[in-house]
Amino acid sequence: MVPPLRRSSRRAARLRYHHYADRAAGLRASEVRALFAVASRPEVVSLAGGMPFVAALPQELVINAMDSVMRQQGPVALQYGSGQGVPVLREQILEVMALEGIRAHADDVVVTTGSQHALELVSKLFLDPGDVVLSEGPSYVTAMVIFKSYQAEVDHVPMDEHGLIPEALRQHIVRLKAAGKTIKFLYTIPNFHNPAGVTLSWERRVEILEIARQNDILVLEDNPYGLLYFDQPAPDAMRSLEQEGVVYLGTFSKTLAPGFRVGWALAPHAIREKLVLANEAAVLSPSSFSQLVISEYLATADWKGQINTFRGVYHERKNALLGALEEYLPELTWTNPNGGFYVWVTLPGGLDSKAMLPRAVKELVAYTPGTAFFADGDGRQNMRLSFCYPTPGNIRIGVRRLATVIRDELDLLETFAGTGSLDPLRESARFGSPPPETA
Amino acid sequence: MVPPLRRSSRRAARLRYHHYADRAAGLRASEVRALFAVASRPEVVSLAGGMPFVAALPQELVINAMDSVMRQQGPVALQYGSGQGVPVLREQILEVMALEGIRAHADDVVVTTGSQHALELVSKLFLDPGDVVLSEGPSYVTAMVIFKSYQAEVDHVPMDEHGLIPEALRQHIVRLKAAGKTIKFLYTIPNFHNPAGVTLSWERRVEILEIARQNDILVLEDNPYGLLYFDQPAPDAMRSLEQEGVVYLGTFSKTLAPGFRVGWALAPHAIREKLVLANEAAVLSPSSFSQLVISEYLATADWKGQINTFRGVYHERKNALLGALEEYLPELTWTNPNGGFYVWVTLPGGLDSKAMLPRAVKELVAYTPGTAFFADGDGRQNMRLSFCYPTPGNIRIGVRRLATVIRDELDLLETFAGTGSLDPLRESARFGSPPPETA
Repeated sequence: MVPPLRRSSRRAARLRYHHYADRAAGLRASEVRALFAVASRPEVVSLAGGMPFVAALPQELVINAMDSVMRQQGPVALQYGSGQGVPVLREQILEVMALEGIRAHADDVVVTTGSQHALELVSKLFLDPGDVVLSEGPSYVTAMVIFKSYQAEVDHVPMDEHGLIPEALRQHIVRLKAAGKTIKFLYTIPNFHNPAGVTLSWERRVEILEIARQNDILVLEDNPYGLLYFDQPAPDAMRSLEQEGVVYLGTFSKTLAPGFRVGWALAPHAIREKLVLANEAAVLSPSSFSQLVISEYLATADWKGQINTFRGVYHERKNALLGALEEYLPELTWTNPNGGFYVWVTLPGGLDSKAMLPRAVKELVAYTPGTAFFADGDGRQNMRLSFCYPTPGNIRIGVRRLATVIRDELDLLETFAGTGSLDPLRESARFGSPPPETA
Repeated sequence: MVPPLRRSSRRAARLRYHHYADRAAGLRASEVRALFAVASRPEVVSLAGGMPFVAALPQELVINAMDSVMRQQGPVALQYGSGQGVPVLREQILEVMALEGIRAHADDVVVTTGSQHALELVSKLFLDPGDVVLSEGPSYVTAMVIFKSYQAEVDHVPMDEHGLIPEALRQHIVRLKAAGKTIKFLYTIPNFHNPAGVTLSWERRVEILEIARQNDILVLEDNPYGLLYFDQPAPDAMRSLEQEGVVYLGTFSKTLAPGFRVGWALAPHAIREKLVLANEAAVLSPSSFSQLVISEYLATADWKGQINTFRGVYHERKNALLGALEEYLPELTWTNPNGGFYVWVTLPGGLDSKAMLPRAVKELVAYTPGTAFFADGDGRQNMRLSFCYPTPGNIRIGVRRLATVIRDELDLLETFAGTGSLDPLRESARFGSPPPETA
């Protein structure tokens, strides 16, 4: 009674393709994606990724927690849960946040599928097309992908070795308001910034919160690395100073393991209910199993001692990276992070980190070009080097290979000096000056 | 140097509250939410929820899978993974889908945080404000929440005991197109429909796909319950007939356990890349740990036998529910599902399921009012009864309590007959006629 089915033609597929929502235009594969696939081969030393070194976590701790959870509350772990997250875990999250000066109520904690999803949900709740998100320049790649996927504009505020510059923030706000823009968030990573490696000073935290309050701008404080400090702790969280104007984002991905996908938002009470509804719409509930395993781990294992172990691992690797840079590439400048995963490197004028990447991968070393961290194409003279995952020995090998590539590039540049053909970047790089504490 | 901080005033919080994006208006707590909190007390027999009976899954199977994963590939399980999902699991998902006639390539499978998140991601990619989503009337609550959260309109197409009515679908499309509307999806649950309990016939699957193709409407085929049939399998999936025009949504929540939050989309190849990018933006990657445990379970346990066990459990419970309805409430009509979790009940004219719910909870029985399943306030004469979670004995007790409530309501109605004060629903309910196979 109906005509026989045929496979849809390619034409039909193309027509459907054009049916994407306007916001989908913001979701594009990055240009370096294909290269990174190559860079994941074992012979390549990758200073590009942000994978925590989970091998430093004793597996027995995780296995024991899983076994206890399954034997004591298996049917709960296997079931749907609350859209806000497991109550006991939300209480424990308060203890984690207290280490950075935060006092809060478990009612205002919303557990999410990694803190990435908290960022997605908050963006979905707040961003209308054309809204502006202020962020450091450079900033975290996948945060900017989210903001753009909701058709917001990202406006980069300059930073220096003490983090975001308050006076620059004021100027940007004045300029944007004069242009009739609606500023929704200040998105900031105050501790051991990704990718810049710097930490916002206490005085600036106070000042920036005051600016945000005066201008009715919600602060998204993203703090994945805060507990992974090296010499001394970072200043207390911005959320410790202000509760109604800050959405604080935390995660177990760096202090435990990302494979569970458990993070959280600590939200102002007025926002919390909508955030839970958005979470339920998106995933019904975060994984009960993952939450209960983490809760059991926090209740029974020496989780603070484990964070100390991670700090030791990453500190040693940072020293390896900075030592290798000093030895092999003293003509470069870089930041000296007091925690976290990343160093931000400034290349000599004339070099282009994005153009250079294929040659680096050919030399079996990978990094992330600075352009990935700017919404506006800036950052060619910078690169992010991660010290979180490779061993200290491999970090040294990687930097040595990188030095070969950079020397070759500089030789080429010198050969063609004055012809103008290889010199598009003679102007100074953004956030390019070396901080005083760096060699 | 800066003024001392004060707590933000309530005024500031309210101002920020008004900064929500337009789309956030669609995220509102349902009116029955508070009641369901009460209904979760142990003395209440809940015929309201959709929780699978995970206690029917031997916990040793899960514990063994976890142990193997942690001992054999712990660092992978604890790490970030691919935004598309673990390759070996995507291959295994092909085997699961093959049971319903689907042939596909693992490249086109995208693993998500439950199939709920697949629905969220596809909606984010496709829905512009004002777009129309066609769905059955009634339809799955939280799908409609997502569509509305992207400011799409839900247009309900009537169904009968054989599912969505193709001729009605044609008429709706003509009417919507004449009104200048853009129809993006047909969202459908062909098997053991939530909440209606009916199954789309094979002939209609063929016909509806042809209608969708002619009108360039993407079909979202949501199939959480397909493998949980009772007497005979449901017809093959719509995706078995058409690959470019169907996004198929599957999940392990009902055939294994929802606590892992692992589902998937099988997407047309042209869409797949954007879907992965949207998934990465939202959660970076789905949980490696959950995926590997499920993969290990599928590789080593008798997962088909376990699905048979679940089928037996739910079949027995459906029989208990229908038996109790026949015994205690023969004046009602209901659907007779051949699988899944739900029966759709039509009340005698004049009764209002939403108004009646508080009285039912007082009598220690809960159900979901039909209004929850319509975007337009319809459904007052219907309720959804779930037989998935309570034991057969408790199901009988719940229906007996429900009968008390309904008798009381009918008595009241009779007392006031002719006064017009309690009789707003004398017109026939939508999808209210009993299917022929029902008592």
